[in-house]
Amino acid sequence: MKLHIDFPRLRRDLTELGAIGRTAEGGVSRPSFSEADMRARRWLLDRIAAAGLAARVDAAGNIFARLGGDGPAVMVGSHLDTVPNGGTLDGALGVLAGLECLRRIRELGLPLRHPLELVAFTDEEGRFGGFFGSYALTGALTPGDIPGIKDTQGERIVDVMARHGLDAMQAPSARRDPAEIRAYVELHIEQGPVLEANRVPIGLVEAIVGIHRIGVTFHGRADHAGTTPIPDRKDALLGAADLIRRGRDLVLAEGTPASRLTVGVVQVKPGVANIVPAEVFLTYELREVSAEMLRELAAESRALIAEVAEAAGLTASVETILDIPPVPLADAVKDAILAATKELGCAYMRLSAMAGHDAQVIGRVAPAGMIFVSSKDGRSHSPLEFTADDEIERGANVLLLTLHRLAADGGS
Amino acid sequence: MKLHIDFPRLRRDLTELGAIGRTAEGGVSRPSFSEADMRARRWLLDRIAAAGLAARVDAAGNIFARLGGDGPAVMVGSHLDTVPNGGTLDGALGVLAGLECLRRIRELGLPLRHPLELVAFTDEEGRFGGFFGSYALTGALTPGDIPGIKDTQGERIVDVMARHGLDAMQAPSARRDPAEIRAYVELHIEQGPVLEANRVPIGLVEAIVGIHRIGVTFHGRADHAGTTPIPDRKDALLGAADLIRRGRDLVLAEGTPASRLTVGVVQVKPGVANIVPAEVFLTYELREVSAEMLRELAAESRALIAEVAEAAGLTASVETILDIPPVPLADAVKDAILAATKELGCAYMRLSAMAGHDAQVIGRVAPAGMIFVSSKDGRSHSPLEFTADDEIERGANVLLLTLHRLAADGGS
Repeated sequence: MKLHIDFPRLRRDLTELGAIGRTAEGGVSRPSFSEADMRARRWLLDRIAAAGLAARVDAAGNIFARLGGDGPAVMVGSHLDTVPNGGTLDGALGVLAGLECLRRIRELGLPLRHPLELVAFTDEEGRFGGFFGSYALTGALTPGDIPGIKDTQGERIVDVMARHGLDAMQAPSARRDPAEIRAYVELHIEQGPVLEANRVPIGLVEAIVGIHRIGVTFHGRADHAGTTPIPDRKDALLGAADLIRRGRDLVLAEGTPASRLTVGVVQVKPGVANIVPAEVFLTYELREVSAEMLRELAAESRALIAEVAEAAGLTASVETILDIPPVPLADAVKDAILAATKELGCAYMRLSAMAGHDAQVIGRVAPAGMIFVSSKDGRSHSPLEFTADDEIERGANVLLLTLHRLAADGGS
Repeated sequence: MKLHIDFPRLRRDLTELGAIGRTAEGGVSRPSFSEADMRARRWLLDRIAAAGLAARVDAAGNIFARLGGDGPAVMVGSHLDTVPNGGTLDGALGVLAGLECLRRIRELGLPLRHPLELVAFTDEEGRFGGFFGSYALTGALTPGDIPGIKDTQGERIVDVMARHGLDAMQAPSARRDPAEIRAYVELHIEQGPVLEANRVPIGLVEAIVGIHRIGVTFHGRADHAGTTPIPDRKDALLGAADLIRRGRDLVLAEGTPASRLTVGVVQVKPGVANIVPAEVFLTYELREVSAEMLRELAAESRALIAEVAEAAGLTASVETILDIPPVPLADAVKDAILAATKELGCAYMRLSAMAGHDAQVIGRVAPAGMIFVSSKDGRSHSPLEFTADDEIERGANVLLLTLHRLAADGGS
């Protein structure tokens, strides 16, 4: 009989964690460092201890559990935080399946040539911009950035972490030498429709989408809604409306089928019905698998912002919030995933990851790979997120064989 | 020497009231029933008492001071509340000039044939939708509406008034028999550029603009910003963007030069950068002096909302927030204002009021009139709101002579 995980145990873990931050709509709200996220973190530390593993929390709030001795580790993980009213699997599956793999390998007493290390990264989803933990781990977080990192309510990460006894300014010290990371593997739901449409259970991720997220502020003038004639106004919202429509048209016309544009945040000041908007802030997020196309769409979008601002008599300012180039994944990890699917005799297909993942941050400094399981109707970041138990089990078993292959059989 | 107000005394009152709710930008924030508004109310009650007048607060929170005996009164007033970071004169001028007129007439011992009554109305500016006080006074407020009246933060007027010891459900009992109102006169800054551009100090208001304000909600679907291809989305923000741009084009093409459209509030749910907006609420406010044109623009706008929603794969729901028909002002009051300007030998011009005023609510049940003084650069609802002292003094003297004419000389 092949090596396999204890699925009922993983299922119990998923159900218990899924109850933390549960919303009335049946989703989960665990933004990073929220009360629910803190409860999830304490719960995970308990589960790690119960598995007989040593837990560690670094200066960025990343949680680790390690199995085996010294030397470069084969890492496995994902994140505990969620978007507001998100699903129970996005992030949680990768952490808990990783924990189950370490637990199983430990209880079977399988010999390891390289240590295994579980990680749950801080703020993948972006309450504070995203990837705080994986940036810190890879040295991409600079101390100068930290005081300016805020959530959309204006709360500083420095103040929020301090309330939980953590010093955000120390987060850069969480950096690990890339040579300590032999490989990083992340199991995740696809969050898209491809696997389901092709009736294939496992996705072998070839590359992870790049994200170029900017904050755009249009500056106009507050005028009285009655007394100022329409042509005399400097309506900041008009620039925003034109950008939302024309940005979409631009990306559809100039991009590839994999190009994405999302405006998800709009804030209007002063925000009352009888005053012409003086200032509008919005987030403008581009995604692409081709680095060249992403750069091109970003440049054309900036030209469009200037154009719509001028046409409406406004000025516009642009700040870069996220700029993550697309990342091809490592052949060594992809080969191990491929061998695992063959050993299990399950079908797979190659695809790109259109969502951002910690794997793409780690993948810039160390060999990284991702395994996808299918998402019902492609739904994610929603209470409707769902993956059937047998697909979760199959994905976790591919992860187990992949990790075992990388940690037990690997060379050097 | 002609009858005139004590300008230094009025100036002191304006300065003192302008310090209540002062903002860092030099504006004033006194939304109705805010802490600043409550302080302004207490200050006014003190000033009324200091003038030797009897104050009264009705069930809607309207503040009154009366001079003279029984019988239908000549009313004068405006409002104390302001928009967030508004100016020091919008509303305050009408209340304080009215108070000064009563004080002056009282101290000169001028005989009155009809009583004078000062009023400061609750929530003209619209934290709770606008005109709460004048609606209550004229019987336009129905008990069934009150529990649903909320501010943009979702705070119910019932709860907010209760914190100040007032029972909002009793507000309809503030209704006065229209026969008790012999006339209503309101002095106000123009809030527009017409008087200044024409170098005329006094505006004789012919009619007050009608306002049709609706709340529009576009309903789409929350999708992941990366995994859902753009053509497959139901992006609620796209419908909103198209309505903002095309609504403006519609009003410019089909309306008159006096037509206004303002979208001042936009709320996006869930409102995070990496989720396609599932729901967008916005306010859509039309203004017109012609009742027929206002009805026409409202009907065409509703058709446009349905059209942009369908084109973006959304559904839309529409609620009416305000529906105030344009109001022509009363000849008897206009004649009195005209006579006052002649007595003072000052130039005047006839114009329309493009902002909403309590005078238009009162004007539906009783004879109402308005006097305008000029606004520098037409600015209002802004810290930049400004009218020179000599213009304020002239306007207050026109008000004094108008009130004296209506209360002392009037027939019947």
